[in-house]
Amino acid sequence: MTAHSEASNMQQLESQFLAESLPQRLKTAVMAIGGAEDRVRVRHILHTFFERAGSTNARIMIIPAASRDPESMGRIYQDIFEDMEAAAVNVLNVREREQGEDPLLLQHLEDCTGVFISGGDQLRLCALLAGTTFMENLCSLVRQKQITLAGTSAGAAVIGHHMIAGGGSGEFPNRSLVEMSTGLGIIPEIIVDQHFHKRNRLCRLLSAVAAYPERLGVGIDEDTCALFEGDGLLQVIGKGTVTIIDPGKMVSSTQPDVEASEPLSLHNLRLHILSHGDRYSLPKRKVYSQRVGLSP
Amino acid sequence: MTAHSEASNMQQLESQFLAESLPQRLKTAVMAIGGAEDRVRVRHILHTFFERAGSTNARIMIIPAASRDPESMGRIYQDIFEDMEAAAVNVLNVREREQGEDPLLLQHLEDCTGVFISGGDQLRLCALLAGTTFMENLCSLVRQKQITLAGTSAGAAVIGHHMIAGGGSGEFPNRSLVEMSTGLGIIPEIIVDQHFHKRNRLCRLLSAVAAYPERLGVGIDEDTCALFEGDGLLQVIGKGTVTIIDPGKMVSSTQPDVEASEPLSLHNLRLHILSHGDRYSLPKRKVYSQRVGLSP
Repeated sequence: MTAHSEASNMQQLESQFLAESLPQRLKTAVMAIGGAEDRVRVRHILHTFFERAGSTNARIMIIPAASRDPESMGRIYQDIFEDMEAAAVNVLNVREREQGEDPLLLQHLEDCTGVFISGGDQLRLCALLAGTTFMENLCSLVRQKQITLAGTSAGAAVIGHHMIAGGGSGEFPNRSLVEMSTGLGIIPEIIVDQHFHKRNRLCRLLSAVAAYPERLGVGIDEDTCALFEGDGLLQVIGKGTVTIIDPGKMVSSTQPDVEASEPLSLHNLRLHILSHGDRYSLPKRKVYSQRVGLSP
Repeated sequence: MTAHSEASNMQQLESQFLAESLPQRLKTAVMAIGGAEDRVRVRHILHTFFERAGSTNARIMIIPAASRDPESMGRIYQDIFEDMEAAAVNVLNVREREQGEDPLLLQHLEDCTGVFISGGDQLRLCALLAGTTFMENLCSLVRQKQITLAGTSAGAAVIGHHMIAGGGSGEFPNRSLVEMSTGLGIIPEIIVDQHFHKRNRLCRLLSAVAAYPERLGVGIDEDTCALFEGDGLLQVIGKGTVTIIDPGKMVSSTQPDVEASEPLSLHNLRLHILSHGDRYSLPKRKVYSQRVGLSP
């Protein structure tokens, strides 16, 4: 294929993408939800997951392993998706890492069209499942677009390679503010933070991005979802905003030099506040407006 | 003067500025302090004000009109600057707008080298003093570099033309989040917010900047000061950071179109986190790093 026809094909694909209406049915996605999504009223985000997982043909697995009370948490989501009339809804009951190697479980995963990871503590989730065959197969199936994956709160935090494991709100961005760990790497290039504006998490996301400036900071508000298509296009669904912090052209970060509790200097970041309907290309680091087609 | 010699003069002035060490003595400035400045230990910011106002030759006027208890508030700062051995320290006792026309007071203002505006409620301050001859003369003396002006918290909020009068933290940026009013316009091009990261004020500053995208958002942390030189150079002093939100290249703001409580879309903002020693040029909208001289 010539460079020219490739470019023209890209344009065509892009137009096609933009022409499609939202939400798109039966097209897998990765959904990072900022926590506190509407579970009782319109349930827009959860309904989008249900649709993307196959609607009434969806076979959904719920992973409540981040929660302190996984049984109750699992039941809440089970009831919701059963109420939507998914074909099958199961809750993964994992208490020990060894279960992540269970051939029956691995077989069951192959049959799923959607996996939903609940909130709680992202470190608990990773301690139980990261690096198990189950989780590796799940990530692989998501990348192959066999499964729609949604994670809310802690379930969203684990989506990047670098994961915010904890931290405070802080009076200013500084290295000691954020505790980093390794996530599942489903979309490696992003660092996710959730409950973003409500819990005043700009400082900790900035501190995380300063530590890994080759990544992109994605702060997701409550009842709001960053939905990633396979081609790296993110679209925003829900009540609040998705805040993108792009350090691609950052100059003069003091991160490597200062004491852990000293304020950071971070110059020339790009900031986007995206709301419902906005789209953003991860590979191009470019916003597509909800209003007037493409913005420059 | 030719364009070329003008440019060369600018370069010379810039080198000269950058060569000078911080804090500079006996050179007037406008100091926007983010509130909660250290009043009892090192008092770095208050000492910088004292030096800029003339050190032991300083004749300082304290304006506690934003406070609910102006007498106590005035006395606190009076004690501090007397303790530093300023030549004269007086507290302005304004209870009625008419006092802003008092010839004796206007004469007294002419004799001052430094004016300090305390915290409290910026609307109370403006209701008492904005538009009076006293305040007009004060602004004029500050612009003529006759007086160093410092304002902390509410006293910093009034420095721009557009002033944040109140608002909440908010779950996402939206128009209803921020109540705008008119400030004193000492540095018209900025919109100041104070107690910035600690009180989670990103959303309200973004909402303000969205309303006036020709301005620059300046969020100042506690015990931190944005010190403006006459030539539009800002330098950061203190414990925390100064957050600059530059909408100069913003595309696709939905501010004019959305409902008051709907989340805003704001694409392509520039964000700088500045810390102690960093400098920023308002006219050039450019950062000068604390570390390696000029950053690109």
